[in-house]
Amino acid sequence: MTSVGRVAVKFAYDGTRFMGSQRQPGERTAESELLCALIKVGAIISADENRFRVASRTDRGVSALGNVFAVDTDFRHQELLAALNASCEDVHCYALAEVPKNFSPRRARGRWYRYHLPYRGQDLELMAQGAKEFEGEREFRLFCKPDGKVTLRTLSSITLRREGELIVIDIRAREFLRNMVRRIVSALDLLGQGKVGLEDLRSALEGQGRSMGLAEAEGLVLMDVDLGLEWKYPATGRMPSVARKRAHRARVNLRFQEGLLEISELASKFRNNDI
Amino acid sequence: MTSVGRVAVKFAYDGTRFMGSQRQPGERTAESELLCALIKVGAIISADENRFRVASRTDRGVSALGNVFAVDTDFRHQELLAALNASCEDVHCYALAEVPKNFSPRRARGRWYRYHLPYRGQDLELMAQGAKEFEGEREFRLFCKPDGKVTLRTLSSITLRREGELIVIDIRAREFLRNMVRRIVSALDLLGQGKVGLEDLRSALEGQGRSMGLAEAEGLVLMDVDLGLEWKYPATGRMPSVARKRAHRARVNLRFQEGLLEISELASKFRNNDI
Repeated sequence: MTSVGRVAVKFAYDGTRFMGSQRQPGERTAESELLCALIKVGAIISADENRFRVASRTDRGVSALGNVFAVDTDFRHQELLAALNASCEDVHCYALAEVPKNFSPRRARGRWYRYHLPYRGQDLELMAQGAKEFEGEREFRLFCKPDGKVTLRTLSSITLRREGELIVIDIRAREFLRNMVRRIVSALDLLGQGKVGLEDLRSALEGQGRSMGLAEAEGLVLMDVDLGLEWKYPATGRMPSVARKRAHRARVNLRFQEGLLEISELASKFRNNDI
Repeated sequence: MTSVGRVAVKFAYDGTRFMGSQRQPGERTAESELLCALIKVGAIISADENRFRVASRTDRGVSALGNVFAVDTDFRHQELLAALNASCEDVHCYALAEVPKNFSPRRARGRWYRYHLPYRGQDLELMAQGAKEFEGEREFRLFCKPDGKVTLRTLSSITLRREGELIVIDIRAREFLRNMVRRIVSALDLLGQGKVGLEDLRSALEGQGRSMGLAEAEGLVLMDVDLGLEWKYPATGRMPSVARKRAHRARVNLRFQEGLLEISELASKFRNNDI
């Protein structure tokens, strides 16, 4: 009945509801919410004892649809996700894989991030050209917060496309440095606005010149981590109904915010200074 | 330079950020936020002394794009909205009218509410038929929280249409009773789902039978209050940039929530019980 061993679990969270993903004393984070739930349902004793590991750390404000944690547990696999979802408000667990004792989710084949940039007339063709400059093995010293790490990294691909009011940018690599996606996106945004040129980008990728800013965290979503696992999909409990409700609320909220934007533009149009 | 007198101001707020619109001890509400701002910028001394009045009270969770307050003030009209927007985080003031000393925004010609219902296969034609039943002078005893008031009211119009995943319902009347829109919407929703029939609706409008539920507050927006005023549009300060930023965040959030919904549906599709 009970499978003992190590499992990996795919999970999602809305970054605006947390103060980052990592455990921090006194702050509510995606990790602390998960750990609380794991302990509460009796799946683990402690993070250390059960070797709790997370595939990707995300900054404050960044969301995830496909982050992964691994943990040693003898909790019944079939019931784990529903139990966790019942005691986590804002972290949603939806897939599970049985993994070897020595498995670490940090050793990934690839990671996929998506950034949502507001469209405001940027030159998309130029941005696509700029994106090409980042592909392959590059020196990302000016495009990260190095934290003392080697800053040579290999970026598999960057693609971008406009979707209505958004520019959607997909970036894939095996490993990212801290703030790397947000710094690349900020540089591409400046390029698209004509505030920097392709030459500036090339120089920056040779470590010359200055950093080109940091795009805001709220636009970023960790879409998936490729660990070469075969995922299983046990019941997720309340997740589908929570997801339906939140999607509905997000639609209503977008209507409201678009209404507010319309009003503020209307108000500018009819601006009168004669009162 | 300074116009002394009474002014009416149009304002908007996101109801999910407040505990209702009315002042309540110890709770953050749209009214308390407005009053704080009015006092902070020096436009009024107190709600009573400056005869602060609001056109429509909205329940906890309900938003407004076109609510109106009136107040006696000698603050320079040209600068009032920008000053209020600078000291209100979540209430947005965007139009102003000079009004007579005896003006009360509660005496309106008409009010327009919009409800956003999730579309899940309801029979829209039947709902439109049902909506007709509410138009004109009707007994709304079973469609409100009466609070001891007369429950005979005249509803000018209800229209509804599907827009993607939403059913958008516009309801207009001179005066509404408490919870009236949400109770009408809930009845129409049940009708559209085949859970009640047109006959049940008709009986309920004759005060027969039971109430038909209360739609959730978050779907409701007070769109406008018609007071027969000529609105002026002085500068609104930071409102346009705040509105742009929030609309962007709402778009990103909708993408995330739709992603989460997709994942949870995918997970159901691949559900396996063999682990």
